[in-house]
Amino acid sequence: MTSTIRINRERLWRTLMELKEIGGYDDEATGLRGVRRLALTDADAEARRRCVQWMTEAGLDVRVDRIGNVYATRPGRDRTLPCVLMGSHIDTVATGGAFDGTLGVLGGIEVMRTLNDAGVETLRDVEVGFFTEEEGVRFGIDMLGSAVTAGRIPLDQAHKLTDADGKTVEEELLRIGFDGDAHERRPIPYAYIECHIEQGPLLADAGVDVGIVEGVQSISWQRLIVAGEAAHAGTTPIESRHDAGLVAAAVVVELRRMCDSGEFGRLRATVGTFDIGAGQTNVIPHRATITVDLRNPDDKLMTAAEQHLADYVEALAQAHGVTTTWERMAKTAVVPFDAAIQDVLAATADDLGLPYVRAMSGAGHDAQEIAAICPTAMVFVAGEHGGISHTPREYSNPDACGNGTDVLANAVLRLAQQP
Amino acid sequence: MTSTIRINRERLWRTLMELKEIGGYDDEATGLRGVRRLALTDADAEARRRCVQWMTEAGLDVRVDRIGNVYATRPGRDRTLPCVLMGSHIDTVATGGAFDGTLGVLGGIEVMRTLNDAGVETLRDVEVGFFTEEEGVRFGIDMLGSAVTAGRIPLDQAHKLTDADGKTVEEELLRIGFDGDAHERRPIPYAYIECHIEQGPLLADAGVDVGIVEGVQSISWQRLIVAGEAAHAGTTPIESRHDAGLVAAAVVVELRRMCDSGEFGRLRATVGTFDIGAGQTNVIPHRATITVDLRNPDDKLMTAAEQHLADYVEALAQAHGVTTTWERMAKTAVVPFDAAIQDVLAATADDLGLPYVRAMSGAGHDAQEIAAICPTAMVFVAGEHGGISHTPREYSNPDACGNGTDVLANAVLRLAQQP
Repeated sequence: MTSTIRINRERLWRTLMELKEIGGYDDEATGLRGVRRLALTDADAEARRRCVQWMTEAGLDVRVDRIGNVYATRPGRDRTLPCVLMGSHIDTVATGGAFDGTLGVLGGIEVMRTLNDAGVETLRDVEVGFFTEEEGVRFGIDMLGSAVTAGRIPLDQAHKLTDADGKTVEEELLRIGFDGDAHERRPIPYAYIECHIEQGPLLADAGVDVGIVEGVQSISWQRLIVAGEAAHAGTTPIESRHDAGLVAAAVVVELRRMCDSGEFGRLRATVGTFDIGAGQTNVIPHRATITVDLRNPDDKLMTAAEQHLADYVEALAQAHGVTTTWERMAKTAVVPFDAAIQDVLAATADDLGLPYVRAMSGAGHDAQEIAAICPTAMVFVAGEHGGISHTPREYSNPDACGNGTDVLANAVLRLAQQP
Repeated sequence: MTSTIRINRERLWRTLMELKEIGGYDDEATGLRGVRRLALTDADAEARRRCVQWMTEAGLDVRVDRIGNVYATRPGRDRTLPCVLMGSHIDTVATGGAFDGTLGVLGGIEVMRTLNDAGVETLRDVEVGFFTEEEGVRFGIDMLGSAVTAGRIPLDQAHKLTDADGKTVEEELLRIGFDGDAHERRPIPYAYIECHIEQGPLLADAGVDVGIVEGVQSISWQRLIVAGEAAHAGTTPIESRHDAGLVAAAVVVELRRMCDSGEFGRLRATVGTFDIGAGQTNVIPHRATITVDLRNPDDKLMTAAEQHLADYVEALAQAHGVTTTWERMAKTAVVPFDAAIQDVLAATADDLGLPYVRAMSGAGHDAQEIAAICPTAMVFVAGEHGGISHTPREYSNPDACGNGTDVLANAVLRLAQQP
């Protein structure tokens, strides 16, 4: 058994709790303290500055690229070798918690501190970074920063994206001072490992703190716009209505039926937004817009689900005399992670005496973008309350966070010593 | 067959088109000329003065009561007998047309002119009037003037109502000079007949210009608030979700099923507002609020529909582990119109050789308030474009307006000669 290092759990936890207060708010629905730190807002900017400060205090060289991704380097003996990269994101959804994304970033910084404390010298550079707008909540495309880095989305296209107020990514990067000059297509790493909370119940159900992620399931985001006709609620007969709101509602209900049917495997469907504009109680809605979020660990079954949905909507539109328009927001195929990196993670967990399970990720992660340019894998950390996230109830206890970060630290150390 | 009179269609149309320009505006959405004449505004005041001028020119005695309702009298032989009253309203919604309400008022004035031209002397007084704030758009209570006249709403309560700027009905009546001294609880009429556009497609579909209204259906407005739990769209298993948006959508779909089933008679259900707040594509909605507008020509079936809906929502809430709250916004029972007056209208239409259909009113009208104090009925006039109203597209052609007003004129004449 090779010698292992251990991170400082109290220090990691203090850092997590400190960053939690940046963008912190009192959540009415849960009565808990939540985090609202949407990408490139003032709160995000303050959190970015705090992370950069911690990186600098750890003696790391910090650089910012043209999409606002931040990287910090701990030099190795041979600077010519590709680095080992750790990272995740620090932006949150509007009703977020303290662990989603931030654990992988603050955990990575803690790994650097631990390497410093142990006086460990690595062969390869080790880097920790965070990517811009992973959640996709503000500018509509998730994993934005890592997608630009991987070359899936051109920089100028990303810069032109606008939020609900029409502000562009480029303007906001400039405004908060994170419009860096490093090239977004960064030097190819030797390996990328992202530590992230599971956001699901599998680990807790299996009674383990740690998961080794085999890949990310397919994700499909579409917007459906239904155009009907406004009319008087009291005088318009049911059969002569063109109710855009009703058609949108029927789609929401059908999506749940599709999930329950088992017809499409482990399909998960969510309608997170439902907008009929400035509606009036006594006027039939003439327009409705919903977003449809589909997830599936099987590409073929995902395609089948999208096709069924399209056919269902078309038939529904004809039946109700409304017109429907689909807009593709995002689509990612199943992304399998690198087997060799998974084996390193497994061996590391064994060395640490930590039981683990292997699992597919239900959520999208920056790792699925970076996997396109270098060997990639992820470490999952168990969450409580069924692993609920995107809510202030999101919680992973200090031991789980510590164990996951220990796996990250030792796996990174192994890889960083490989010639 | 008794002798019939015919109104002057060109004169009626000229009057309609002239009043249309008072409060006229260019509507962006439709590119048409619309009418914005909210109650007790300067535009309403000018329209009121124009109507009073036309009444005076027709030799009528004009009086204004303490809620701003205006009445004009053509004396009969026996002043001691209760009068026959015609009327409606001249206020409009913010995006109104030229016919809603005004047809019944200007048609009534045209009937007076026609009686003058024909030198007809009636046994009873004949009156034409218009009521304050029928639309309820500015001060929040529709049929306000007629409701005060019928005694449903006390005068001082009506006077204290405020608009969005905090201006009271009493102040505005004073400001525009329509704070009359006639008592709002007016002498009980022998009969009241209101001529109004249908605001629906039934007459046009039946190929007739005229409808005889059997009553106003029951109206129920409720707000439903669903509280679930926010969670991650990709990682939260379907069976452990508490999706507030899905529950609200299922209610919308069930309401349509209820209408289609026939189980609740001629139920009409509309969800005009559907709000899940600042939703996010990848977050399960934790809250949803919808309004439910129910209409039914049968009170018992309306009660059954409300009960079924309440039970359905309760079961749904248990199945999805969400909590639901109902708020009552409004509820009015069915108002049946007087059978004898309906028969007079039918006989009149037959004499004139005008085909007609009988129908319930889906919308609220001053007639449903006046029905509480005297025998009441309504004449409907067909509208084009499916009878659409509350938009500049609202249009009833000169023949339809003329035929409806001919029925009004001759029915009033018959009633005014009854001892």
